[in-house]
Amino acid sequence: MNYAAVWHEATSRFCFCLEPGRFLFRVQTGKDDVKSVTLHSRDKYLPLQWKDTRLATPMKRVACDGLRDYYEAELSFHVVCLRYCFELEDFDGNRVFYSNSGFTKEMPQDIERLFDCPQTLREEERFQVPQWAAGKVVYQIFPSRFATTRSISEEVWYQSPISAKADLGGNLAGITQALPYLRDLGVDVVYMTPIFRSHSTHKYDTIDYLTIDPSFGTEEDLCRLVEKAHGLGLRVILDGVFNHTAPEFFAFADLKQKGPDSRYKNWYYPESFPLNSELFRPNFKCFGYYSGMPKLNLRDKETAAYFAEVGLYWLRKAGIDGWRLDVADEISHDFWRQFRRAVKAEFPEALIVGEIWHHAPDFLEGDQWDSVMNYPFCRAVLDFAAEGCLSASGFLGALGFQRGNTHTAAYPLLWNLIDSHDTPRILHLCGEDKGKHRLAAALQLLSPGMPMIYYGDEVAMTGGKDPDCRRGMLWDPKRQDEEMLRWYKRLLQLRREIPAITQGETLREEAADREGLIRITRALGGEEVTLLFHNQEGAVSLPDLAGKTDAITGKVFPGTIEGITAMVLR
Amino acid sequence: MNYAAVWHEATSRFCFCLEPGRFLFRVQTGKDDVKSVTLHSRDKYLPLQWKDTRLATPMKRVACDGLRDYYEAELSFHVVCLRYCFELEDFDGNRVFYSNSGFTKEMPQDIERLFDCPQTLREEERFQVPQWAAGKVVYQIFPSRFATTRSISEEVWYQSPISAKADLGGNLAGITQALPYLRDLGVDVVYMTPIFRSHSTHKYDTIDYLTIDPSFGTEEDLCRLVEKAHGLGLRVILDGVFNHTAPEFFAFADLKQKGPDSRYKNWYYPESFPLNSELFRPNFKCFGYYSGMPKLNLRDKETAAYFAEVGLYWLRKAGIDGWRLDVADEISHDFWRQFRRAVKAEFPEALIVGEIWHHAPDFLEGDQWDSVMNYPFCRAVLDFAAEGCLSASGFLGALGFQRGNTHTAAYPLLWNLIDSHDTPRILHLCGEDKGKHRLAAALQLLSPGMPMIYYGDEVAMTGGKDPDCRRGMLWDPKRQDEEMLRWYKRLLQLRREIPAITQGETLREEAADREGLIRITRALGGEEVTLLFHNQEGAVSLPDLAGKTDAITGKVFPGTIEGITAMVLR
Repeated sequence: MNYAAVWHEATSRFCFCLEPGRFLFRVQTGKDDVKSVTLHSRDKYLPLQWKDTRLATPMKRVACDGLRDYYEAELSFHVVCLRYCFELEDFDGNRVFYSNSGFTKEMPQDIERLFDCPQTLREEERFQVPQWAAGKVVYQIFPSRFATTRSISEEVWYQSPISAKADLGGNLAGITQALPYLRDLGVDVVYMTPIFRSHSTHKYDTIDYLTIDPSFGTEEDLCRLVEKAHGLGLRVILDGVFNHTAPEFFAFADLKQKGPDSRYKNWYYPESFPLNSELFRPNFKCFGYYSGMPKLNLRDKETAAYFAEVGLYWLRKAGIDGWRLDVADEISHDFWRQFRRAVKAEFPEALIVGEIWHHAPDFLEGDQWDSVMNYPFCRAVLDFAAEGCLSASGFLGALGFQRGNTHTAAYPLLWNLIDSHDTPRILHLCGEDKGKHRLAAALQLLSPGMPMIYYGDEVAMTGGKDPDCRRGMLWDPKRQDEEMLRWYKRLLQLRREIPAITQGETLREEAADREGLIRITRALGGEEVTLLFHNQEGAVSLPDLAGKTDAITGKVFPGTIEGITAMVLR
Repeated sequence: MNYAAVWHEATSRFCFCLEPGRFLFRVQTGKDDVKSVTLHSRDKYLPLQWKDTRLATPMKRVACDGLRDYYEAELSFHVVCLRYCFELEDFDGNRVFYSNSGFTKEMPQDIERLFDCPQTLREEERFQVPQWAAGKVVYQIFPSRFATTRSISEEVWYQSPISAKADLGGNLAGITQALPYLRDLGVDVVYMTPIFRSHSTHKYDTIDYLTIDPSFGTEEDLCRLVEKAHGLGLRVILDGVFNHTAPEFFAFADLKQKGPDSRYKNWYYPESFPLNSELFRPNFKCFGYYSGMPKLNLRDKETAAYFAEVGLYWLRKAGIDGWRLDVADEISHDFWRQFRRAVKAEFPEALIVGEIWHHAPDFLEGDQWDSVMNYPFCRAVLDFAAEGCLSASGFLGALGFQRGNTHTAAYPLLWNLIDSHDTPRILHLCGEDKGKHRLAAALQLLSPGMPMIYYGDEVAMTGGKDPDCRRGMLWDPKRQDEEMLRWYKRLLQLRREIPAITQGETLREEAADREGLIRITRALGGEEVTLLFHNQEGAVSLPDLAGKTDAITGKVFPGTIEGITAMVLR
């Protein structure tokens, strides 16, 4: 047995409360290294209990990251303090117990050698996410370039190449008009990048967090947008940029003017005075080295309180459904805990999503964010579907890593993207190959989590890195790729209609690396579905699946998958 | 290479700020599995820097837990955001890079594939512990049984067997009188179990947190004790029992009397009314199932604020140096964060030590406790020195696990105990074998961390489990074991005089399991010292060490270690 690969800690990463009285335990082992894992548990105070609390629970392998297997078991109990250990059996029938005393041949009898589950005493720490969010589909809008009620010439709207500052006149009223399109497309959540007053097109340098940018409209426009969205069953998420401000934000302006005498001195990180805004050599902390985005000091109580209040302001004022938080991993855990406490006390169903580009277990433990922009998912899809530099098994491993290392409350809420306003568009990354784009979209839309579609991908918009990825939305049907739109609509429809696709138990998961084929079978409530993802030209024979129907096309599967594509076989 | 054993996360467990501009990185591998590890790092915004920030830093193996090796490197830098990966070389010369993209043959060029060090942006989260504490020696006092100024007959004071309720009349004035003894013994910190008003002998069921128990004395007595201790260079730590109260505590008394109408309803966890205090079947949450200790609801703001204030009260009033916190792992992270914030804002040098019997990485990340009662250390010493059920290499593995999995700020502050008021005494656990007891004490006093000596162990007091382990302190020289006392004093003296013993770099660490021998060589500032710990009868030949001097006895080492003992060779 690969003992060095076996790991468990009695912390909120490996053992947590799902709901009062129900708990989840997780342990990891080397891949394919053990035949079975059993969770042995008992009340710490066994002699005081009215009945024997000892229990042996078989654990299920729920994920594999290519190197390690992840096993889980749920327990329901109402004891004051649970103690437990794991029994691992290898394929030769050897058994070993894993506890605080490491690996032993016998189950430790001394209660203090068992793992201790303090979570049983701290149910209040359980991870509570908004009940509406799991599995829902997000649509990301870049408001200055998505839709407008102004009369803008086609020449202006569809200009390409496009500069960062090009003014297309996008506004909130335009987005409101486009809501039926989004409902029809089949998404559930509209996420808009920043809409508050700012001089830039992207508006990630906010001048006033309490005012809608005049070019986008008014507070009333936002309220109308949210109201109409809610009427259509859509949720609305705004973008909160609390890591930094624009230099014109009142506090920084005051600091710049008054120097050390400013009452906002503690809102930022000035290193000396007078403040020097020379472009990439400022004497105050910034986002990156960019003086156009001075970094806020959220360790300061007044500053932190101000921005927690901003969070509440728009929840109250416009009835939005949550926040996506910019550069969120560059802000302290402490601030996010305060932010969550403030927001959830009044709006327990508000969604809190942090932008972080990497694996983020320390932000997803229940006291900070509900979800993240899932860039590691994006990376895996690009590597497998667009660049082809990741094998089929490598792709499954990347997703298995996420499943095995993410809190089960957060896992179905991860915002699975394949591109965004901060990356080149998926079609561009696919070298304009629409087959690859469709495959990438299928991997995105047929996986558990919350897929986040970047506006226009569904009509095959393309574009390289910023600002090219932020062109005007293709509204002209002649410019839209109808086949791509049908593909997106059909996949979104299947996602809704066949819950087994994203919520089913995985019965089988296989990768054929040489053939570039991923095959996943999931089942839920009697319904079984097999997903195929193929990233190569050429054909792969799958005779055992012949005769099933591909739910995407409605065609009978002939037993051979050809070329770069995806299928949903029933 | 055992890839499944390699692990790193860009979180505060594997990558943290030591002080502004100085950072520590940690990665684990399979034991003896790699020849070298190199940390490759660079600024995320390389092109904007004035100089090339790329750096390759060799990492050092700092610990081995028997299954895994732990490597560390420190970096000093002032970049906005550091990106990094690890290069692992095996013994066949094969090299592999470990990053967010897993294992690759080449170093990833895409900046987003590298690990991201957000700690560089969140220096404010760094773990700041009291500067006075590292390596200091704690002496645990059970005040009702340690010393008294009252005239108590020898018959009463030394009674054995002793009952839980036996009144020996111990008091604070008695402890104050005994301080020169402690100074002379060579300890640095006096930790007293609870001293606040309570009906029990142990006082873990507090009736009034703001009053000294009358049998122990007055507030003035405490102030005098602290003042005298400080005058002798000793620190004083009190015991805070904030998980539960006595039923007579004002809030619970009110709740019991007024039921659902009590304004203290939210201070506890009543399940129904009237409250039923039948001994082990209460209808409210308790410590264990014991109705004599109703559990506090520290999620309630008012309750939490009250107990954070209790923490501050005695720091202000008596000038104590910190708190040991009872059953601390059964209280939420949230409360401890609040407690730390309150305490450290006013008393940054106050020490906060949580009671937890298990590995506790989630409480030692910088925002909660500074240290823990190190029961895993206790377990390892007992298993190796007293019970002999743990091999020499197993012992080193247990300590290596702690070194590799504990924040470097907290590691030298861990309260290394070998017994306490909650366990049988070490001598009892050693089957009254004083040689084993001396070995256990040597393992304790010659290790990094803060050894915690349970009162009377130094004069070879014995006693089985509570209440037997809480007998009256042996003050009568005729009852004290002089040899044991000399052993403790000598080891404590060496600990002070030879910093290499506990702070030195480990040059060599070996275990001979069949012979029951541990051999550790550490060096600091030109001084080199070799520690030997032997847990068996019989002799082990170590010719290469012959001629060195054992600093404990002052005798020349003949090249053979005989019987159960420990040596400090220079």
